[in-house]
Amino acid sequence: MDLFIGNKNYSSWSMRAWLVLKNFDIPFQEYLIPFDDFQIDGAFKQKILSINPTGKVPVLKHDDLIVWDSLAICEYLAELYPDKKLWPQQVKSRARARSITAEMHSGFMALRSICPMNIEAELTTVGKKFWQESVQLQHDVQRIEALWNARPNIDGFLCGEDFTIADAFYAPIVMRFISYGIPLNDESQRYMQSILSNTATQQWIQEAKREHHLVECEEPYRTKY
Amino acid sequence: MDLFIGNKNYSSWSMRAWLVLKNFDIPFQEYLIPFDDFQIDGAFKQKILSINPTGKVPVLKHDDLIVWDSLAICEYLAELYPDKKLWPQQVKSRARARSITAEMHSGFMALRSICPMNIEAELTTVGKKFWQESVQLQHDVQRIEALWNARPNIDGFLCGEDFTIADAFYAPIVMRFISYGIPLNDESQRYMQSILSNTATQQWIQEAKREHHLVECEEPYRTKY
Ligand SMILES: N[C@@H](CCC(=O)N[C@@H](CS)C(=O)NCC(=O)O)C(=O)O
Ligand SMILES: N[C@@H](CCC(=O)N[C@@H](CS)C(=O)NCC(=O)O)C(=O)O
Repeated sequence: MDLFIGNKNYSSWSMRAWLVLKNFDIPFQEYLIPFDDFQIDGAFKQKILSINPTGKVPVLKHDDLIVWDSLAICEYLAELYPDKKLWPQQVKSRARARSITAEMHSGFMALRSICPMNIEAELTTVGKKFWQESVQLQHDVQRIEALWNARPNIDGFLCGEDFTIADAFYAPIVMRFISYGIPLNDESQRYMQSILSNTATQQWIQEAKREHHLVECEEPYRTKY
Repeated sequence: MDLFIGNKNYSSWSMRAWLVLKNFDIPFQEYLIPFDDFQIDGAFKQKILSINPTGKVPVLKHDDLIVWDSLAICEYLAELYPDKKLWPQQVKSRARARSITAEMHSGFMALRSICPMNIEAELTTVGKKFWQESVQLQHDVQRIEALWNARPNIDGFLCGEDFTIADAFYAPIVMRFISYGIPLNDESQRYMQSILSNTATQQWIQEAKREHHLVECEEPYRTKY
């Protein structure tokens, strides 16, 4: 099984799929396709289009099957490995987990556009400014805090004791909240701690910080390190 | 089981969940919450927030369970009724169906923002203008045509003979292509015919056309009928 991903520092959708594979000990080969300016004749697009007609990462290749999109990849893995419990086991908890995950998959547009993931960057000055100026950003953060803090167990993950796909979907949000210094309540900070203590997340962060590859179109706020 | 939806003329996400319930003969009660200006103290938000903390439709209520988000609703229904085959039966076809569905759930932002669903409206003049001006709109449409026309059977649905969740996700796109007069190749038009011949889709369209309820914030292009 092969997972094609983008730069670990920037590619939030890649991180989601990768975290699920790692957390559930699913064997895979990873191939990082470095981001560039995403022009159609550039190296990134040429490489990814040869694998996947959407021209985006992540993509999972399993024999002759191509699964594009992070959520479809996670659902496929959940089906392949039912015993690993990628989703909660109870049908109602699973429906809740999928609602939480789908809300992220299709939403939080203000947060996603104003605060693109940039793990190694310290962007708290910019973050403070946008936090004060953008009501939409505040709404997104409020909703995320409400959703996080409805978790069954304050020291656990979104659906209980165990890490599930839902947590993988919010891990890149944790990265953003840190880089941009978004002010959060205590319960939210405890959830962030659970994510940051996760071994797979730590590995991703370390690898992201080692990249040192500044991609202009992913950097609305920095021009150099 | 209760499904809360928005106006049939405008609410594309409601249409997706509703089409799945109808196509698979799943008994449900529908409750239409009329759109307004979506202000927090308005009737729409007050009503929907009392059911669902995201403040959006569709929402499925099943006893004490609340499932928000169209995709999570469809996954829940697929689990409740495994014999009805809401997804393709083969694991690889299902992974492909989920990729197609998730691509819609999270993507096609240019099409979605430039051409909001408006079933009863004739917007071909506006449509022609944007079609010429917006490269991003053209890209979205090209990708949708490629995806539709990779279907296994030219006279069938996206995953074969039978209507699946994937088709429900593209039905509102068919509605947009018609309202805005987007130019399409023959194979795409044949797919549109399959969708338009679907009994549940016909019922939704008829009910949408009977609404005659002009909601200002859903009407970037019309001020009256
Ligand atoms: N809905 C997709 C989104 C994938 C996506 O937008 N990937 C970004 C990187 S994080 C990408 O490949 N961007 C390149 C481009 O849009 O040209 C998913 O969940 O996998
Ligand atoms: N990801 C959600 C999107 C739901 C959504 O955006 N619904 C729209 C109507 S089609 C809505 O309720 N808008 C009201 C608002 O955003 O205030 C889903 O798939 O159900």
